[in-house]
Amino acid sequence: MHDLIIIGGGAAALSSAVYALGKRLDMLVIYEDLDGKAGTRQHISGQVVEEFLAGVEAIRSFERYVRIQAGHTLRDRVVEVSKTDGAFQVMTAHHGIYESLAVIVATGATPLTLDVPGARELLGQGLGYSATTHAHLLAGKTAAVIGTTVRALRGAVELARMAAKVYLIAPDDDNLATPLAARLRERSNVEMLEGYTVREIVGEISVEELVIERAGQTVRLHVDAAFIDVGLSPNSEIVRELVQTDSDGFIWVDDCNATSVPGLFAAGDVTTSFGEQIMIAIGEGARAALSAYDYILAHAPVSEPLAIG
Amino acid sequence: MHDLIIIGGGAAALSSAVYALGKRLDMLVIYEDLDGKAGTRQHISGQVVEEFLAGVEAIRSFERYVRIQAGHTLRDRVVEVSKTDGAFQVMTAHHGIYESLAVIVATGATPLTLDVPGARELLGQGLGYSATTHAHLLAGKTAAVIGTTVRALRGAVELARMAAKVYLIAPDDDNLATPLAARLRERSNVEMLEGYTVREIVGEISVEELVIERAGQTVRLHVDAAFIDVGLSPNSEIVRELVQTDSDGFIWVDDCNATSVPGLFAAGDVTTSFGEQIMIAIGEGARAALSAYDYILAHAPVSEPLAIG
Repeated sequence: MHDLIIIGGGAAALSSAVYALGKRLDMLVIYEDLDGKAGTRQHISGQVVEEFLAGVEAIRSFERYVRIQAGHTLRDRVVEVSKTDGAFQVMTAHHGIYESLAVIVATGATPLTLDVPGARELLGQGLGYSATTHAHLLAGKTAAVIGTTVRALRGAVELARMAAKVYLIAPDDDNLATPLAARLRERSNVEMLEGYTVREIVGEISVEELVIERAGQTVRLHVDAAFIDVGLSPNSEIVRELVQTDSDGFIWVDDCNATSVPGLFAAGDVTTSFGEQIMIAIGEGARAALSAYDYILAHAPVSEPLAIG
Repeated sequence: MHDLIIIGGGAAALSSAVYALGKRLDMLVIYEDLDGKAGTRQHISGQVVEEFLAGVEAIRSFERYVRIQAGHTLRDRVVEVSKTDGAFQVMTAHHGIYESLAVIVATGATPLTLDVPGARELLGQGLGYSATTHAHLLAGKTAAVIGTTVRALRGAVELARMAAKVYLIAPDDDNLATPLAARLRERSNVEMLEGYTVREIVGEISVEELVIERAGQTVRLHVDAAFIDVGLSPNSEIVRELVQTDSDGFIWVDDCNATSVPGLFAAGDVTTSFGEQIMIAIGEGARAALSAYDYILAHAPVSEPLAIG
């Protein structure tokens, strides 16, 4: 039985793993892809914001360090996590079941996308998921943000400081009563299109037009870029039967990154905690690992000292 | 008036500053020393735990980046922070008053020390503040931990896995009913000395003996190393009149690193949040900066666009 199993390969998981290795725990990281969203998403290329580079650089060094730990990593998909007699059983798709005293779930979240013509084809070609990280590239241009998440509104405010014109396409009224939304309404270069949904994204090579609709009425908007920010879907299915989540499936954690199940910890975008940012995920991962470490120190059998690796 | 003033120079402050610079905010960092505890404390030298190195490396690169931002840094001591008419006034010892829309306090905490003969002279010579980071160096030796904080108990458990003999000197019974304390009592190589206080730390070049006392009875313990872990004192005097703190003076923050005062945020060891660890501080600093950024976007005058630097 391992002391700790960490599930995931993104910023939070890698941060947890580095911490656990430093503490010489008998630890196993089970991941499908190392490096999570930080490495695979188009919005990194062209990214010049120093905060993000600083975080990405740290994650790259974590990844290099974790990858070479023979016996501490397993590339597989976790199917389910259960708990029996004080131990966790982590079932994988191809390597059977692994047991541990504590588990950290850091499986991240997947951005919800739009199921409309053009959404898949134009992704990365003027169509993205992060207005925040591209705002500075759109000085003097026209951009649209689709969605009413806090992240969408923040992105729209940022765009409005740079772009000539910003459309906020708001299919619902989530967060439209917040100070950020009030700020958007005050700006003369922002048009709020409430109750509209996107029907098509049009462009030869890059995004050129959005076709939006409300109550049967169709409008075509010329845009230079569009950002989909309709929310994140937490990758929490593997513990959905075991642990308390919010109504969207995000794993509830306390301020020590403990979940509702003793010995089970969670970190990063899969949790209810605030801020999808790489540096925040690093902090959450380290905190989850510290809490798991305290749990392991208190619960590991004394007669069997922790393996010093 | 600045958008944001960050007070402090440690891991949390530097992380906030890097984030704010990435967002091109009109930001000023006021610090006495850049790099905080991560650079100046003896327990870094001889430190081999990878987690810590990874964090220190990130902080070093943050520091290099922040230091060269002309006009964004000021070396001075902040005397007091107040709030009038929606703006903060930050009074410095030597440069007068600076104003801002939002403030992040990341002034850290100072380890409480012992006021006994030898405590000052032997610091760094077998006497330190962090059992956790030195445990691996004490295999087969005798060590003492002084204090009953969670950090003290965790350090004692870690030492007990490596050292031949561990004394826990417990002047009070804080945390002595926790699972970590129960674990300590179970170990045959741990001696709990409850109700004892340290009277003297003895050693020619390095720590050799502790003189402890209970109810007039004095005991001399031979030790190879001793760790003082009697608590931290938050450096929160500058906002003590303004903001809600706990009974020890740690600034209360919510899970977005907001304090009880709108526009005032806090991060790192000066707050009530869990875990004095460099990677956790990086995450907290970034989260405080993200929250401050949302506040600034919502509250900065529209007629006066944010400075793009």
